Amino acid sequence: MTRHFQHIALIGKPDAERISETLAGIHRHLTAQGFQVSVDKGCGACMAGVAEVRDIEELGRTCDAAVIVGGDGTLLRAARLLVDHQIPLIGVNLGRLGFLVDISPGEVHGRLDAILAGHYQFEERSLLRVRVCRGNTVMHDRVAVNEIVVHSANATSMIEIETSIDGAFLNTQRSDGLIISTPTGSTAYALSAGGPILHPALDALVLAPINPHTLTNRPIVIGGGSLIEIAFRPSKQFRAQVTCDNVSIPDVEASDRLRIGRHDRPFRMLHPVDHDFFAILRSKLNWSSGNRN
Amino acid sequence: MTRHFQHIALIGKPDAERISETLAGIHRHLTAQGFQVSVDKGCGACMAGVAEVRDIEELGRTCDAAVIVGGDGTLLRAARLLVDHQIPLIGVNLGRLGFLVDISPGEVHGRLDAILAGHYQFEERSLLRVRVCRGNTVMHDRVAVNEIVVHSANATSMIEIETSIDGAFLNTQRSDGLIISTPTGSTAYALSAGGPILHPALDALVLAPINPHTLTNRPIVIGGGSLIEIAFRPSKQFRAQVTCDNVSIPDVEASDRLRIGRHDRPFRMLHPVDHDFFAILRSKLNWSSGNRN
Amino acid sequence: MTRHFQHIALIGKPDAERISETLAGIHRHLTAQGFQVSVDKGCGACMAGVAEVRDIEELGRTCDAAVIVGGDGTLLRAARLLVDHQIPLIGVNLGRLGFLVDISPGEVHGRLDAILAGHYQFEERSLLRVRVCRGNTVMHDRVAVNEIVVHSANATSMIEIETSIDGAFLNTQRSDGLIISTPTGSTAYALSAGGPILHPALDALVLAPINPHTLTNRPIVIGGGSLIEIAFRPSKQFRAQVTCDNVSIPDVEASDRLRIGRHDRPFRMLHPVDHDFFAILRSKLNWSSGNRN
Amino acid sequence: MTRHFQHIALIGKPDAERISETLAGIHRHLTAQGFQVSVDKGCGACMAGVAEVRDIEELGRTCDAAVIVGGDGTLLRAARLLVDHQIPLIGVNLGRLGFLVDISPGEVHGRLDAILAGHYQFEERSLLRVRVCRGNTVMHDRVAVNEIVVHSANATSMIEIETSIDGAFLNTQRSDGLIISTPTGSTAYALSAGGPILHPALDALVLAPINPHTLTNRPIVIGGGSLIEIAFRPSKQFRAQVTCDNVSIPDVEASDRLRIGRHDRPFRMLHPVDHDFFAILRSKLNWSSGNRN
Repeated sequence: MTRHFQHIALIGKPDAERISETLAGIHRHLTAQGFQVSVDKGCGACMAGVAEVRDIEELGRTCDAAVIVGGDGTLLRAARLLVDHQIPLIGVNLGRLGFLVDISPGEVHGRLDAILAGHYQFEERSLLRVRVCRGNTVMHDRVAVNEIVVHSANATSMIEIETSIDGAFLNTQRSDGLIISTPTGSTAYALSAGGPILHPALDALVLAPINPHTLTNRPIVIGGGSLIEIAFRPSKQFRAQVTCDNVSIPDVEASDRLRIGRHDRPFRMLHPVDHDFFAILRSKLNWSSGNRN
Repeated sequence: MTRHFQHIALIGKPDAERISETLAGIHRHLTAQGFQVSVDKGCGACMAGVAEVRDIEELGRTCDAAVIVGGDGTLLRAARLLVDHQIPLIGVNLGRLGFLVDISPGEVHGRLDAILAGHYQFEERSLLRVRVCRGNTVMHDRVAVNEIVVHSANATSMIEIETSIDGAFLNTQRSDGLIISTPTGSTAYALSAGGPILHPALDALVLAPINPHTLTNRPIVIGGGSLIEIAFRPSKQFRAQVTCDNVSIPDVEASDRLRIGRHDRPFRMLHPVDHDFFAILRSKLNWSSGNRN
Repeated sequence: MTRHFQHIALIGKPDAERISETLAGIHRHLTAQGFQVSVDKGCGACMAGVAEVRDIEELGRTCDAAVIVGGDGTLLRAARLLVDHQIPLIGVNLGRLGFLVDISPGEVHGRLDAILAGHYQFEERSLLRVRVCRGNTVMHDRVAVNEIVVHSANATSMIEIETSIDGAFLNTQRSDGLIISTPTGSTAYALSAGGPILHPALDALVLAPINPHTLTNRPIVIGGGSLIEIAFRPSKQFRAQVTCDNVSIPDVEASDRLRIGRHDRPFRMLHPVDHDFFAILRSKLNWSSGNRN
Repeated sequence: MTRHFQHIALIGKPDAERISETLAGIHRHLTAQGFQVSVDKGCGACMAGVAEVRDIEELGRTCDAAVIVGGDGTLLRAARLLVDHQIPLIGVNLGRLGFLVDISPGEVHGRLDAILAGHYQFEERSLLRVRVCRGNTVMHDRVAVNEIVVHSANATSMIEIETSIDGAFLNTQRSDGLIISTPTGSTAYALSAGGPILHPALDALVLAPINPHTLTNRPIVIGGGSLIEIAFRPSKQFRAQVTCDNVSIPDVEASDRLRIGRHDRPFRMLHPVDHDFFAILRSKLNWSSGNRN
């Protein structure tokens, strides 16, 4: 990874409240520090005339680091789009602490100064990759930071799938769906479905069934390098749907097969040196509130 | 309820394996005993030329009891369609014990003889009724035996709903959906979603959230006579879907309001005198197998 | 219930911080309003010389209502001890809202004035009664407001019990224990064990297994008038323990049988007219905080 | 590991039904094949006069492999006792498939022949080690194959503990206890407490709270090399208890600190070449039975 940062990308959540002031403030601050700053076109309308605006692909090719301003969803999207360029991401929230956007707006200038001066925690996190195969053709090839979900496109019908792991048959399940989640995604949708929290440094995936028909079907954690293959079982009403970080893959057919595994490149993050996953967890899950008496 | 049965309706699961022999056997047996037997048009193709075939509405008007042959789903459907006629139902399975279809094919003749001679457990079970209201107009008015489910028509987006009970605000929730279940439905979908088992004789409903965003949102059991009102919160991508026993109500809009409560008529069942809810529960949930070591 | 209150019992949580000022303040206020006030001996040390102090039994015999100051646990204890006298209870917390102690110290004088002037919501809640039977002898006969728990006295061994309900066999279970909870207790220990929330007005009980060996063993809700009978199965290491609202019954033997059902008298509470169970639930379970992003 | 086996230890579950015939059969078979066979003293009474009987420590020092006959518990115990000798274990059940005792009695001779001829799957599985520290003194130092559980010795009181992982504070929790489980133990007690299944090859541990007071406290999976430190918080009634694979450590005091991590030596197993973890999982959890309709 580049040790010296010169050209910084600035990417914000479009249409968010307070986003333009925050972006403008960061832009002014970094420019004043002598950094070259380019702004993502997707959120750049508010900065037209002020900053250099580029599309995200070009940001990935030319910048040394990217500052992402928004919620965890904003960062997930940037991570997916920038993963092939391997530029490290720095997450800034808009007032509400996120798992990934861990710098608060009130402290953003000092935090960025420190990180860009080389004082940071470096972290690599895995992405998932799914290939939708029809016969010998790969119809779709997508990545996800949080999770891939296989479910029925029709909310009134269950899916029936057969899953194997590294070639070994795992099980047949009837359920509302199956979540395959990274450690990053383990605190998102998979947690609502009863999955465990995975420490971000763990090389593992969790498979969490959604409302499984068989009550003994529980979340299972497997090695991060596993290859998961999923086939749909024929069923009258069934129409399959596959989503990557909540973005749907169109036109998946019931005869398609899914091959899901770790993407070959991780995404990179730079955190403040006092970044603390457990502290964020306590904050997000209200662990200190000791809710009931 | 009529004490003496003379005219029996025979309703089967269409297209099921072994259904025509089973229906024909029951028809022959009951006719030989002197009962008048009419068969539901929906499954009657196989009995054409043999039996008197009528549509289900007419069966409801003219028969004293209905023998339902199939799975629990077959009985649910008959219960919804026949509820206004209040004729009692007798459930016969096709080889796999159900919660409601509790008579096995091997013992069906003897069991029917006993029940039709007046030796039975009589049971009334509540149905739910949902009205979909648009302004002051009731757009849809439906009943469900197991459950009413409110969810997003779009598997990639959560619903955001506000629920009140008897006029008191319960909560706002973001989730994949909300199940409102009768005791009968508590062993079906609601159980997969983490809801409790409700004894069939309990005058209660369970509200079970599906993958709620807020982890402290738990299933709640309320009185069977409660009025549940649900409003959708405006959301960019949201399209509402409401299902009754897994049958979808078309064209529900995000501005509609739902009013859900007990239907004013229960459905009636006749069980063998040794019918045992707990025994069925043990069998269906494999309680005796003591699975892990 | 007595419509006019003249003699008020004042019962506090012993040793609690700030308890003596709160008690003294209430005592002064009620005395100034012309009420006769007697203070429970158990918390009365701090009020010696100021107030008339009596033991709780005498308070039950002579008072028209009892003001309980402390946490929900303080009120549970008073409810158990006073249940035979049927005097209504008014719950005051010490700064942290409880399910039962719903009046906050800052508003206590105005709230008490209104309630004692007859402006209140009246509520009756069931208690459980457990009898520990050895042969034909009842060895112990206890009541509980929240729950009765049957578990192993030895944390390293599971219990094996056989449960029947109204004479019908429910199941045999191996687990860490079984919680039998009232609606009042459903938001306490049973909730931690995965049980549902029961509305306080529901005439029902919940049986929630604790870490059951069989994964399909789920919480079950039955009618409030049910008789639950529990027998222990012989096991090498097993030593039984039965607790009522977390108070242990001594010397239960593995050959004893438990008979658990509703106590024949409920306890009575007077709440402010705007008392709202769902509002307390939202507050205690942090439903509004929408914790994760 | 030794490639050629000559001296085989034979260890059985004492007092089990059918154990003596099974042991005698295996002894006879292995002896006939030319192996030297020594039998564990603990189960050797039944084999007195027939076989060479030694204590388990001597078996560990002198044998090349150990055949364990019984349930998973029998194998857990042998794994703990033999871990320092690193001799590989072969698990034989007594008619009921176990996760570790995966050879059935009906096929035992052929399976042993193949394994001892070098046709096996070799597997190493981690153990946990707990040190109970009082000031600077290590009072106890124990190992566990499945799990270490920290709970209250008194079933009526919760524990309050502070947990840190690799020096970083995780949380304070009030609960009935905390399970720290290996992948091997993830299908045992931790599963009943709501923990996920961990694949045996995963280098990870799961921390599963037991009935936590805070409902958002969920199981968390961390790296297998993590150091977990636990301190008790002072509480009136509290008396700590720590168990290793359900064996209690005596006299743990509330001021003691626990240091829990991976034992520096794994235990070794030899499985038939067609050993299939997922197949055992399906069998033990009844996944194929598709229990409810």
